[in-house]
Amino acid sequence: MHNFTRIIDNGKPRVVIIGGGFGGIELVKSLKKADLQVVLIDKHNHHTFQPLLYQVATAGLEADSIIHPFRKCFEDQPNFYFRLAEVTSINTEKKTVETTIGHLRYDYLVLATGATTNYYGNEQIKKHAIPIKSIDDAIALRNHILSNFEQALLTEDEEELNSLMDYVIVGGGPTGVEVAGALAELKKHVFPKDYKELDFIKMDIHLIQGAPRLLSGMSDEAGDKALAYLEEFGVDVWLDRFVKSYDGYTVELDNGQKFITKSLIWAAGVVGSPIDGIRKESIVRGGRVQVDEYNRVTGYEDIFALGDIAAMITAQTPQGHPMMAPPAMQQGKLLGKNLQQLISGKPLTPFVYKDQGCMATIGRNRAVVDLKVLKTQGFFAWLIWMFVHLISIVGYRNRLLVLINWMWSYFSYDKGMRLIVGHKKDPNAPIHKQAPTTTQTTFS
Amino acid sequence: MHNFTRIIDNGKPRVVIIGGGFGGIELVKSLKKADLQVVLIDKHNHHTFQPLLYQVATAGLEADSIIHPFRKCFEDQPNFYFRLAEVTSINTEKKTVETTIGHLRYDYLVLATGATTNYYGNEQIKKHAIPIKSIDDAIALRNHILSNFEQALLTEDEEELNSLMDYVIVGGGPTGVEVAGALAELKKHVFPKDYKELDFIKMDIHLIQGAPRLLSGMSDEAGDKALAYLEEFGVDVWLDRFVKSYDGYTVELDNGQKFITKSLIWAAGVVGSPIDGIRKESIVRGGRVQVDEYNRVTGYEDIFALGDIAAMITAQTPQGHPMMAPPAMQQGKLLGKNLQQLISGKPLTPFVYKDQGCMATIGRNRAVVDLKVLKTQGFFAWLIWMFVHLISIVGYRNRLLVLINWMWSYFSYDKGMRLIVGHKKDPNAPIHKQAPTTTQTTFS
Repeated sequence: MHNFTRIIDNGKPRVVIIGGGFGGIELVKSLKKADLQVVLIDKHNHHTFQPLLYQVATAGLEADSIIHPFRKCFEDQPNFYFRLAEVTSINTEKKTVETTIGHLRYDYLVLATGATTNYYGNEQIKKHAIPIKSIDDAIALRNHILSNFEQALLTEDEEELNSLMDYVIVGGGPTGVEVAGALAELKKHVFPKDYKELDFIKMDIHLIQGAPRLLSGMSDEAGDKALAYLEEFGVDVWLDRFVKSYDGYTVELDNGQKFITKSLIWAAGVVGSPIDGIRKESIVRGGRVQVDEYNRVTGYEDIFALGDIAAMITAQTPQGHPMMAPPAMQQGKLLGKNLQQLISGKPLTPFVYKDQGCMATIGRNRAVVDLKVLKTQGFFAWLIWMFVHLISIVGYRNRLLVLINWMWSYFSYDKGMRLIVGHKKDPNAPIHKQAPTTTQTTFS
Repeated sequence: MHNFTRIIDNGKPRVVIIGGGFGGIELVKSLKKADLQVVLIDKHNHHTFQPLLYQVATAGLEADSIIHPFRKCFEDQPNFYFRLAEVTSINTEKKTVETTIGHLRYDYLVLATGATTNYYGNEQIKKHAIPIKSIDDAIALRNHILSNFEQALLTEDEEELNSLMDYVIVGGGPTGVEVAGALAELKKHVFPKDYKELDFIKMDIHLIQGAPRLLSGMSDEAGDKALAYLEEFGVDVWLDRFVKSYDGYTVELDNGQKFITKSLIWAAGVVGSPIDGIRKESIVRGGRVQVDEYNRVTGYEDIFALGDIAAMITAQTPQGHPMMAPPAMQQGKLLGKNLQQLISGKPLTPFVYKDQGCMATIGRNRAVVDLKVLKTQGFFAWLIWMFVHLISIVGYRNRLLVLINWMWSYFSYDKGMRLIVGHKKDPNAPIHKQAPTTTQTTFS
């Protein structure tokens, strides 16, 4: 019978953290010396460095170099326990979390479940669009892109050819801009060498943005430069446009404009995914959980939330903080300190977000960076972007591998990971309560 | 409709090669300057460096660093065409190959389909045992091993615990020996740090070998040293034993001895997989296709076979050549020359195998090497093993990544890739004639 049997009450207060994203692992880290039992529950056994998922999806990096096993991250932290499970609900009366492997009592609970892709309630789009939110998403997209070109070789029907060669990316935020730029680079430097029998003039890359400018979260200079770079790379950018429908073949925009594609990449926003059991009074728009300045969920003494899932609504931040890594990491760090303060009955420190700015890369030598100290675009911005991402990647080995891959791609104009890797059944896979089964069609 | 429409008759003889293993890619390479149309058909879009699959399975290397896209391998070879497909049969009358994407006419056909895992006709074992023959096998095994320990944390039942922590490896050839050694290293250096709540004294690793000695293909010194090294690493080696049955839980040997395990790793041998349409008179034991000294399939003028699938039965090689990379590569290289000779009506050169010896690594600083010039075991042998494998890996980038991973693991006593990577459906996956669908249960 599955349970948490090996996590024994040792008299110390138990902090249960749901989710090992940027906020969750910062919190675990900052509890390293705490006299607590720290239990991290995640549905993956690894942290994912989400900002570089798009490079896995576009054959620039191998998946393993941007994910890092939790047990490895914290192997030197004696108070750390990890369990691979999905939390299904929480019981705030009994103070337990219900999971796919049984239930666990908590003294303090931290929701760090992050956000999921937002399809704005459109089930048809949800069914057919391709998200890039998890490592599995990224690998599936890579397989999809490469399979499309293998398929394109097999048809002479012009419309089918376009449906396989053309890409529509929805969302003009950093992810959408970065995916569009990376596809444009593949179109220019890589695919023509791989698929000599195809004419890549025919490969159209469309980027659909709902706002009048790209990178709405950033400065006008950044947004305008990003647009200029993408157009220079041959990407068709459509501003002030929304996708009305997509059936897996035809995309229709709000103005009736249509595109034919088997690849609608959805980067149009995220929404929080609160867990059953949280009082609905605490759930605000965007599916986020309202927290006070100490990241405590409103209406609870012992439940906290941080990162994308947490909406810290104040006079300065009426919308809460941006759903990005930096606020999550800063909140995780502070909450670690505050939990220890709380337990020893000392006063807590309110959270103040230190905005370090925002950046996006469009491709080779092209990035846009808004920092407190400077706004810059182009080659220097691109160097800053690479530096900041490199030092942020979890795990020294991963950092080294990413650096080498980037240098290799830069000098060779190549993307090495053009691999369609199929999937295989584990004959004796331990059958797991409520474990979903996914299927994948491969060529092999 | 799927077909080979973009491979146009250009008046040049068309060589169709089925399979891009060691033999197949050597053949393509040696046809680089040939005035031919060279078509490679494979069910993967990448070459797999099989000798290191076991390191992917045991978290030592990322999958992407030992596989290399065919289109990348031959991007500078104008006469090269690749198609991602599975060959279902051959029509030697019409001179066509029937595939999952349609049929293609050939002037010369080369079978380089390699070998598959040999279960010696035991369907029950085939159903439950875990093979290591493809990159998907290796990733599935890695997921399986890590999932087992996550599961082990959830039980207090001693028998279930053993079934999850114990491993039985069948086959005392290089692969079996290397897997056993790698698991022993994980047990010693890695898993105890990852799973502090488990007692790794309980992790048993059994290696079952049918012959009276390990590494039957190699010298007595090599076999005896391998045994000594494995026992030093705490592996239980059972010589002169066969597996009678395995139901996914209980392994029974020919002497009635039983082991409880959810992980029976099958490395007990391979068997050729000939394609429908080859006259059965040409198919010899082990499912191999009989060829003459020019790798021409007996009874045909225009069909050739090389590597594992080819049995070149001569007075010196009554069993054909060993089913390993070196004979395949040497045959591929020579066949490339001979095909050009044949077309220009010149005499062919008979194949003579240059045996470069054989080697296996047991783990850190421990390998056994039999070369023509010397037989050695231990640290020096281990260096030779690494050097030979490094220079053999296809792709400079892959070589560099493998080298870095090896150095990293060596100095850190760590294996970085302890990642359970789930699988995801491609919503708009181009549906492919006869494409098999595999399913995978994940925790996430």
